[in-house]
Parts: sequence; structure tokens; C-alpha cells
Amino acid sequence: MSLSVYDAAVPTLLRTMKNLSNVLDKGSAHCEKEKIEPSVMLSARLYPDMFSLTRQVQVVSDQAKGAVARLAAIEPPKFPDVETSFSELKARLEKTASFVSGVEAARFQGADARAIELKFPQGTLSFKNGWQYLLTFVLPNLYFHATTAYDILRHDGVKLGKPDFIGDIN
Amino acid sequence: MSLSVYDAAVPTLLRTMKNLSNVLDKGSAHCEKEKIEPSVMLSARLYPDMFSLTRQVQVVSDQAKGAVARLAAIEPPKFPDVETSFSELKARLEKTASFVSGVEAARFQGADARAIELKFPQGTLSFKNGWQYLLTFVLPNLYFHATTAYDILRHDGVKLGKPDFIGDIN
Repeated sequence: MSLSVYDAAVPTLLRTMKNLSNVLDKGSAHCEKEKIEPSVMLSARLYPDMFSLTRQVQVVSDQAKGAVARLAAIEPPKFPDVETSFSELKARLEKTASFVSGVEAARFQGADARAIELKFPQGTLSFKNGWQYLLTFVLPNLYFHATTAYDILRHDGVKLGKPDFIGDIN
Repeated sequence: MSLSVYDAAVPTLLRTMKNLSNVLDKGSAHCEKEKIEPSVMLSARLYPDMFSLTRQVQVVSDQAKGAVARLAAIEPPKFPDVETSFSELKARLEKTASFVSGVEAARFQGADARAIELKFPQGTLSFKNGWQYLLTFVLPNLYFHATTAYDILRHDGVKLGKPDFIGDIN
């Protein structure tokens, strides 16, 4: 049984965002219980020049919608980075999930063979096809930022375990 | 172009371990430059009940060899958790990579359709096939521990950037 790029990408993106959303719930509940100002937790980071918790979540959203847009060869929606609360970050993940799940599988046709280019101020990253883009760029980036969001909350005392990160495997 | 489980799994496992090995080099060089006892860095963790840097690297190794063994339906080698230095952790990753790259692709035949069970003291995880096991368990676990190893070093002042984690995309 071979897998399509769609089947490898879309459920993974959706599951990772859903798990991250549940992790944010635990962060929010911790703030409430311990009388911590949520903005303190949302601006927490593991080192002064690393991204804050808020930014980690926004980047997960950007990775997910960027991945689907590039694999389906469509324009991604623009989501301004304006979130200032746990509930706004969860809404950001939810509207990202709506976009991701709203793109039909048929749109991904040919993604397995089509070259993908990412243009950055520093230069261009060229992927020979959608598989290479998904496996060497999208997934490590997605998990990097989702894990670091988890690590920030964990480092700040939120009671989380790896099952919160991995979520439901079915 | 459809991808085999082998092509999705093995290069990803090898790349992640290679990048982690390079990240450990930067951690080791930082210790030397800043006159930090390496054992202090190796036992660092982001919260008292989280895994240390050493343990994060050992778990990356275990995930990688466990994944290949289960997908190829062979016994994984046993690597005792005895590493006490950056160079020993790098050697652990290297011998894991040797095992991973030494299993022939043909051994993965049927992994895409074969059910996989993981038995833990707490219960059994059942995956309907190798793709589900790879995408919902192996990759998130692998990246979770590799990212947390990076985050521990970064939190302790090692100069690292995401390109160190992502590595060479080609």
C-alpha cells in the first residue's frame, strides 16, 4: 500500500495542531489555578533570543498552512500575528485546521513529482518534489516548534506528559 | 510517484541523528570554550522530572533502532544506556545509524500493510500498518526528543540555530 502526499501530510498537520491546542488548554488551566498572568506564560521563552510561546504556536500555524498551500499549488491565507491570549492562539490553530482540511485531496495531485521552491530573504530552498519538501522541511519544522511550545510550558511548571504531545494515535 | 515506508523512514532517521550529532558537537565545543564541565551540560534538563540531555539522545537512538526493527520485523540491537560524555553519545548515534543503514530495503517489504504492536508496562499500542506507526508514533517521538535535546542546549546558552536542527535538506 503506497501512501499519497496528501495522506502523509494532512492528517499529520491536523493531529499536531489538535494536540498542541490541548497542550495550550493545560497551560491556560495552569495559569488560572496558579494565579499566573497568562501574558507572562505566552511571552515565555527558553532563551532571550528564542521565540516566545505565542510565536512558536504562530509558526506551527504558518508551517501547516504553508505546507498545504505549496503542496496544492494554491495561495495560503494570510493570518496576521495578533494573538494575545490562549484562546486566540487556539482559534488561530482552529482556523488553520479549517484551511488545511478544506483543501480537497485532488488538489494535491502531482505534488509527489512537482518541484517546490521556498524563497527566503537569505536565499531559495529547492525541493525536488513534494515528498522531499514534506519529509525534510515541513515535518521537522512543524515538530520543532510544537515541541518547543510544549517545552516552554513544561519548563514553566505546567503538568504535561509526552502523551499530551503525541495525542491519539488512531 | 509513491514512496515506500523505507524511503520515508530510513533517510529521516539517519538525517535526524546526523543533525543531532552536529548539535552535540556545538554543545561540546561550548563547554570547552566556556570551561563548563561537560557532565553538567549532559545532565541538564528543562524541569526536574524531565529527561536529561543524555537521556534525550539515548531515546532518539532507541526510537530509531526500534522503528527499523519493527518495520523490518527483526530484533533490534540492545544498546545499554551507559554514555557519560558527548563523544560517547555521538558514538551511540553512530552505531544506531550503522544498524539503521545496514538493514536492507527489501526487509521492509510488507511493512506498509503489516500491523505493528508496541507493548508497554501500561498497555499495548496497536498500529494498523507501518505507515500509521511511522507517521503517528515514530516521527513525532523522534523529533520530540531531538528537539528537546536542542532546547536543553539552547536554554543553557549554546549558540545554535534552527538550521543546525534541520540540517542539509538534500
